[in-house]
Amino acid sequence: MPKIVECVPNISEGRRPEVVEQVVSEVKKVKGVKLLDFSSDQDHNRSVITFAGDPGACAKAAFGLIKCAITLIDLTKHKGAHPRVGAVDVVPFVPVQGVEMDECVTLARQLGKRVWDELKVPVYLYEYAANAPYRKNLPDIREGEFEGLSEKMQEERWHPDFGGDKPHPTAGATVIGARNFLIAYNINLDTPDMKVCRRIANSIREKKGGLVNIRAMAVKLDERKQTQVSINMVSPFETPMYRVFELVRLEAARYGVRIVGSEVVGLVPLDAIVDTARYYLQFEDFKTEQVLETGL
Amino acid sequence: MPKIVECVPNISEGRRPEVVEQVVSEVKKVKGVKLLDFSSDQDHNRSVITFAGDPGACAKAAFGLIKCAITLIDLTKHKGAHPRVGAVDVVPFVPVQGVEMDECVTLARQLGKRVWDELKVPVYLYEYAANAPYRKNLPDIREGEFEGLSEKMQEERWHPDFGGDKPHPTAGATVIGARNFLIAYNINLDTPDMKVCRRIANSIREKKGGLVNIRAMAVKLDERKQTQVSINMVSPFETPMYRVFELVRLEAARYGVRIVGSEVVGLVPLDAIVDTARYYLQFEDFKTEQVLETGL
Repeated sequence: MPKIVECVPNISEGRRPEVVEQVVSEVKKVKGVKLLDFSSDQDHNRSVITFAGDPGACAKAAFGLIKCAITLIDLTKHKGAHPRVGAVDVVPFVPVQGVEMDECVTLARQLGKRVWDELKVPVYLYEYAANAPYRKNLPDIREGEFEGLSEKMQEERWHPDFGGDKPHPTAGATVIGARNFLIAYNINLDTPDMKVCRRIANSIREKKGGLVNIRAMAVKLDERKQTQVSINMVSPFETPMYRVFELVRLEAARYGVRIVGSEVVGLVPLDAIVDTARYYLQFEDFKTEQVLETGL
Repeated sequence: MPKIVECVPNISEGRRPEVVEQVVSEVKKVKGVKLLDFSSDQDHNRSVITFAGDPGACAKAAFGLIKCAITLIDLTKHKGAHPRVGAVDVVPFVPVQGVEMDECVTLARQLGKRVWDELKVPVYLYEYAANAPYRKNLPDIREGEFEGLSEKMQEERWHPDFGGDKPHPTAGATVIGARNFLIAYNINLDTPDMKVCRRIANSIREKKGGLVNIRAMAVKLDERKQTQVSINMVSPFETPMYRVFELVRLEAARYGVRIVGSEVVGLVPLDAIVDTARYYLQFEDFKTEQVLETGL
């Protein structure tokens, strides 16, 4: 079995498809890497690119992608519903097959150093690659966003892991790290009321008395005149999709609000889909190997 | 892409694991064939064996399996909840990849001829391999079961496709054919009352005003003191699992009966599991390619 690492850069561009495609083409150029998915969100003004393959090749592709993206994305002109601190906002490495977390941590540190040395974009290391516990959490690093970054970087506590005390003028900073497989999952509500959406989002958050392993925020869906609970599931086998979905349904009901739909951004492991069927169809004993395609 | 056919023999033995394993070992012997699954049901006294691979190799493995099973299974001593007409009751070939239904029909006919010529077990051809419309349906061929077979074979109408007018003394007859992918799906109810279970099973059957593409019957689960709606889903993408499950739930509710669980016998295509998640999580736009493992 070959070593496989997944890499999921999030870039701050979701409205100009030609820019996203140019950035994505950098990944396609690299041998040993397979582009698995990319999807853009207009409201978030953000795109998630997913690729996987040989660890070294993934690091090379990530560097090429960052180098390209910072020439095309200017954060001083960027607006979107999703918080961001950089033109390339976050670059996580995820162990998929035959790889330990340590190896992904090393990839993250090497890439971080190179991004500062060659591109002069300051880098924060997060999650398993973090150099201090208070820097582990992405939202904490991102707090204040691009607009507050100049000030934040003056603080000793928020000095970057690679770089000086100033952000890159148009690309801000990039957060690079190593983490477990994460599902980006959005649940859309039939209310335009952001106050209500925020309450529902808060009620499921780990930080606010909700479910462990769940990060959630409220997002306005202007085009649809609806709102969205935008969720990061950081341990989807401990805290599965159906539990999140059903809890949002319960919490929304008290406001007379209903779920109109949900969406997975990027990829989802087969076992997470199988777990969903297991729960709803009350499977008594179903093995993932019963999925025809896994045996062929 | 190599040609792949699936073959799913059902044998009338589910209580003696050593017999099932000996029969299964015949499949393992054949190169070019992969054993995907086998599972036995005590109440049904029946086992379902699933393998896939090169069409010719599958036919060879099926013949070896039949030859072995008829020496080990004596239907004159067999009892079980599931209707059966043969020691090897039914052998379907299913096109999976790069194969047309016609090729599976040819496999079925060639195997049927060989089973009669070399083993002296009469063979009925069914579904896409049937020689007449009234012989298409498995339950119609099986009506009367092993015990009624001697009499049935006397009728001109029920002369086998290969063989004379008498069943094999201990192995009965075997039904061989070609069909679409089928999901064997059982839903367990918290009532021991077979009358109620039969009503619920009937309410979802195509033949009784229920769902198209659904065959269903009531089965007593003696060990558990429960009953089961045992279902064959003959077109699981037209009539999906969640619809069957939810309809059983609705029909059971009028008797105060609840579903305690469900089970898939053998294999299920990935798309059927994805469809389940799509329905329950109200995915707005989810592609099967978003399942991580499909891209690697």
